[in-house]
Amino acid sequence: MKIGILGAGSWGIALSMLLKENNHEVTVWSIVEEEVNMLNQHHEHLRNLPGIKIDDTILITNDIKEAILGSDMLIFAVPSRYVRDTAVMVKNYIKSDQIILNVGKGLEDETLFTLAEVIEDVIHTNPIAVLSGPSHAEEVARKIPTSVVAASKDESIVKIVQETFMNQFFRVYGSSDVLGVEIGGALKNVIALAAGISDGLGFGDNTKAALMTRGIAEISRLGLAMGGDVQTFNGLTGIGDLIVTCTSVHSRNRKAGILIGEGLTLQEAQEKVSMVVEGVYAAHAATALATKFEIELPIIEQVNEVLFNDKDPREAVTELMLRDRKFES
Amino acid sequence: MKIGILGAGSWGIALSMLLKENNHEVTVWSIVEEEVNMLNQHHEHLRNLPGIKIDDTILITNDIKEAILGSDMLIFAVPSRYVRDTAVMVKNYIKSDQIILNVGKGLEDETLFTLAEVIEDVIHTNPIAVLSGPSHAEEVARKIPTSVVAASKDESIVKIVQETFMNQFFRVYGSSDVLGVEIGGALKNVIALAAGISDGLGFGDNTKAALMTRGIAEISRLGLAMGGDVQTFNGLTGIGDLIVTCTSVHSRNRKAGILIGEGLTLQEAQEKVSMVVEGVYAAHAATALATKFEIELPIIEQVNEVLFNDKDPREAVTELMLRDRKFES
Repeated sequence: MKIGILGAGSWGIALSMLLKENNHEVTVWSIVEEEVNMLNQHHEHLRNLPGIKIDDTILITNDIKEAILGSDMLIFAVPSRYVRDTAVMVKNYIKSDQIILNVGKGLEDETLFTLAEVIEDVIHTNPIAVLSGPSHAEEVARKIPTSVVAASKDESIVKIVQETFMNQFFRVYGSSDVLGVEIGGALKNVIALAAGISDGLGFGDNTKAALMTRGIAEISRLGLAMGGDVQTFNGLTGIGDLIVTCTSVHSRNRKAGILIGEGLTLQEAQEKVSMVVEGVYAAHAATALATKFEIELPIIEQVNEVLFNDKDPREAVTELMLRDRKFES
Repeated sequence: MKIGILGAGSWGIALSMLLKENNHEVTVWSIVEEEVNMLNQHHEHLRNLPGIKIDDTILITNDIKEAILGSDMLIFAVPSRYVRDTAVMVKNYIKSDQIILNVGKGLEDETLFTLAEVIEDVIHTNPIAVLSGPSHAEEVARKIPTSVVAASKDESIVKIVQETFMNQFFRVYGSSDVLGVEIGGALKNVIALAAGISDGLGFGDNTKAALMTRGIAEISRLGLAMGGDVQTFNGLTGIGDLIVTCTSVHSRNRKAGILIGEGLTLQEAQEKVSMVVEGVYAAHAATALATKFEIELPIIEQVNEVLFNDKDPREAVTELMLRDRKFES
């Protein structure tokens, strides 16, 4: 297959290496000219995936047409804030038989759309699927065994995505619950900020496990109200991705949370992490969704207070721990 | 209240400190004379909780009568293999108005009973409750914020346990699903062995998160068939305890798994961990339960193969990753 990848961050690059390994013809586009030059010069993403060599038969370009024209599948691997603008650029060149696959995670602040919904809002003509799950780019690039989920309303598209990505170290399960997969992927980043804050404050594994358990319950509650399937939230793209994001040393959302727990401001933490911290945007959008669907999201609410209203993180975690709920369910 | 604790391992000692902090009168019994002497001499459990001072108003004794007679609540904090023998000793002295609380986790190999069922099998007369959740003893002893669940069929007993244990850093939620709480607590140790094996083999956070996600699904499947409540497995004593056991540096089950993944035999790993590795016993009993209830438990089955049939750990994890299941649910 001929595959175009939009976005040359860690995930876009890791997936390009995986797809090349599977003998596809891969073109990666980045809007950032210096990033393209760096990748073409060093065959390595020096900042995001240091030490990992990128096959030089992967074409890396600053011209979006080269990634779109003639490709069978077009992968959106851009930060959530750039998905709409990227879709607008893509719309000029894409044909209706090209499959669009979103691998990004987040919510659009203004519309509260998931990223696949944003793409569909711009491009109405194409089959669309999403790929998500516990899959740190750093590990996929190093061929560590990883399991993810491909979801589309069209089962034949799910099968194509599975066949395109699967190999000995990368398993792809199928699902039809696109919304559930995307909601889990977007909101786990907010819980990872909370988990990081708890770690940064010096609390323990007990505290974090309790936060994560109640975090996935929050995600499920909201996701069910929005029309997702409960099994999705208990699966790889729900609790699985939450686990990896809240416990891994690779997680930038958790890292940002740790720094905030240690006393840095949101802006200082974001600068220090130096990659996009998706949970910050998702936290804001999730609160709006909670209001819209009349769902209580206590952890996400406290994260918002800490991020945007200067609430003391220790006070926020303490309040969560001491909420007067006596029965578990 | 007057409280007797049976067992002076990490958990028994950590709970004795918590209960003393809550102004209860606490007596801890151990069958091991050297352990009693060490605790009385150093006011510290040198091996299990080094560096943590134990209040010297906690009475530590080798005479089980001193823990039982006159106490309002009797806590079983002994390794699963010793629960029946301990219950037999207790039966001689206990009165029917004394509350029994089991805080141990495991299954009895011969009967496939949970530990509360073992105690009830010996002592038919007393109200019984269980306490479980993501709660490493090392962190509770250091007053790290922790949330657990107390379960009993009798709601008034749940309330007494909550009031006895709760304080600013220790939250106790209530539940009536005793079986679900105990099954989650017993089987998470087996999944922690699998997670440790994956870590020991050098696999990553992606691999482990996938194993854990499918692990809690296995526990839920079996637990539901046995009569547990699905919400329990998605709560603190299910996924919450699984998370802490599979990811924490404190987990002895995970540690044993890591050593086995690195190439040690089961016996060598157990000797090196030097505390009881409950998952080893639970793995065996779980397989028998799977047969009895006709449930497939692929991860637990592979753990058994590695522990008891010399199966190569790498082969076991690889088989799990490559199982030909195409749809997630």
